[in-house]
Amino acid sequence: MNKQTLIEAHNRIKPFIHQTPVLTSELLNKEAGCNLFFKCENFQKMGAFKMRGAANAILSLSDAERERGVVTHSSGNFAQAVSLAAQKLHVKAYIVMPENAPQVKKDAVKTYEGEIIECESTPQAREATANKVKEEKGTSFLHPSNQDEVIYGNSTAAIELLEEQPDLDIILAPVGGGGLIAGTALATHYFSEKCNVIGAEPKAVDDAYRSLISGQIETNLSFNTIADGLRTNLGDRNFPIIQKHVEKIICVEEEEIINAMQLIWERMKIIVEPSSAVAFAAVLNNKEEFATKNIGIIISGGNVDVKNLPF
Amino acid sequence: MNKQTLIEAHNRIKPFIHQTPVLTSELLNKEAGCNLFFKCENFQKMGAFKMRGAANAILSLSDAERERGVVTHSSGNFAQAVSLAAQKLHVKAYIVMPENAPQVKKDAVKTYEGEIIECESTPQAREATANKVKEEKGTSFLHPSNQDEVIYGNSTAAIELLEEQPDLDIILAPVGGGGLIAGTALATHYFSEKCNVIGAEPKAVDDAYRSLISGQIETNLSFNTIADGLRTNLGDRNFPIIQKHVEKIICVEEEEIINAMQLIWERMKIIVEPSSAVAFAAVLNNKEEFATKNIGIIISGGNVDVKNLPF
Repeated sequence: MNKQTLIEAHNRIKPFIHQTPVLTSELLNKEAGCNLFFKCENFQKMGAFKMRGAANAILSLSDAERERGVVTHSSGNFAQAVSLAAQKLHVKAYIVMPENAPQVKKDAVKTYEGEIIECESTPQAREATANKVKEEKGTSFLHPSNQDEVIYGNSTAAIELLEEQPDLDIILAPVGGGGLIAGTALATHYFSEKCNVIGAEPKAVDDAYRSLISGQIETNLSFNTIADGLRTNLGDRNFPIIQKHVEKIICVEEEEIINAMQLIWERMKIIVEPSSAVAFAAVLNNKEEFATKNIGIIISGGNVDVKNLPF
Repeated sequence: MNKQTLIEAHNRIKPFIHQTPVLTSELLNKEAGCNLFFKCENFQKMGAFKMRGAANAILSLSDAERERGVVTHSSGNFAQAVSLAAQKLHVKAYIVMPENAPQVKKDAVKTYEGEIIECESTPQAREATANKVKEEKGTSFLHPSNQDEVIYGNSTAAIELLEEQPDLDIILAPVGGGGLIAGTALATHYFSEKCNVIGAEPKAVDDAYRSLISGQIETNLSFNTIADGLRTNLGDRNFPIIQKHVEKIICVEEEEIINAMQLIWERMKIIVEPSSAVAFAAVLNNKEEFATKNIGIIISGGNVDVKNLPF
């Protein structure tokens, strides 16, 4: 792949995504002591950057493949993204979800006409069920974070951010399964001379932080973070990109995530997920390092239960 | 006054305000059955349209008047707006507030260097205290809604909305003291050939609705609404404008306001005050009337206690 790969991905998905706004806040700049540029993927279709990767993955399939449909296992934003992207492209989407997934998440998938296939609530059951659908129906499997086309699609958020703010010193993005940070790192590598990429991760699920140190993909033993989008591990497609192009990963405490999230809500008047606040928390917690710099932050999404807030 | 008055007000305040975005939502259009254009004054400086009126009022003072400072009585958004506008113009601002006003509101005023003068918690005490400051210090009194310069300043939100969306059939705005709806009505009268203006008011404080029927300024006997910005009455400066240029006022129930607010939060991922949701509630509650039309809605502000939500 090269720069052209990302340009083609961007052109491919443009008709199906929003070019989301880059917002700034004088109050938050003052609070953080640097110049912050928030790329607001909470305003993306279905409420998260995942729409970009899902759209690119489906658009990259052949006509014959599209005819047979797609399958993924996810109970989060990627399930909605695949459902919506497939709906727009008249492709059948099968979404494997644990039977005990919250009704609100099932409903969101149904809104976009995704067909839910229930399974037991274990990673093994999810994978086995998705494989079964793939084999029986000949559908293409889409991975939420560890697939090239998904990573290239995700890269387009940072491409747009850099087009609008070419003078960024650093872009920060949250790290979950690694699909967003890898895409961000590729975009920054090809579209900026000087900008560095830093990942941000909850200390409670610091698998990526440890992976960069050990040089192999580490896993989490517990998943006790409010940033529910960031509990997954890196994969073999995105880890090499992260190793090569991400400067480092900063870990933050739960309390810092909640505090950062509340600050964004109150000062910017926008609704962001806890996962989205992790990158801003990393800045607030390392003010000296970022002082006076131009910092891009990828706000990954805004799908949050407003009836159940942590503050 | 004429169209030029409003153009001058707009040019006067432009360096001190944000040109706020006009947002749309496919999901909410579908839900409401019309084309909605939300003018997002929740993204305005200090978080509400009040910045426009306050800035225009202070900028309209003579140098000698500015030298002596300004005074207002408010415990809400206008207190913050006057404080911030005065701070930016190096004018001293005295804010009369009831001694039992929430600490968070006092702190917001202090952030912008407004000087708080406490008084007893009655309308009489507030007016008397403001008058005393005015006489002792020679300051200019700024009224939150019933003053020409404030109304002209407020009109600029609708001017910007109409510049961006000239094809609107109707603009809806919430009605509290009448300063926003009067400004919106003037802007629409001078800047659109065909657009009508409709006010929206909580049924619990329907003074403006009753005023338009009786032909005189009515008051509220109770103030039991979640839309805390809309409890005040119309005044002699804005009522004639409203009588002349506002088509009608639609009243909505508390439950409808809360439902509309939650919909905006969840679907648009933006934080809006209950008062801001009243106009959208009026649309949702009268779908047939608004069907397929192009509807502008002034989102008046986003200053809400995220730790104390109605849903």
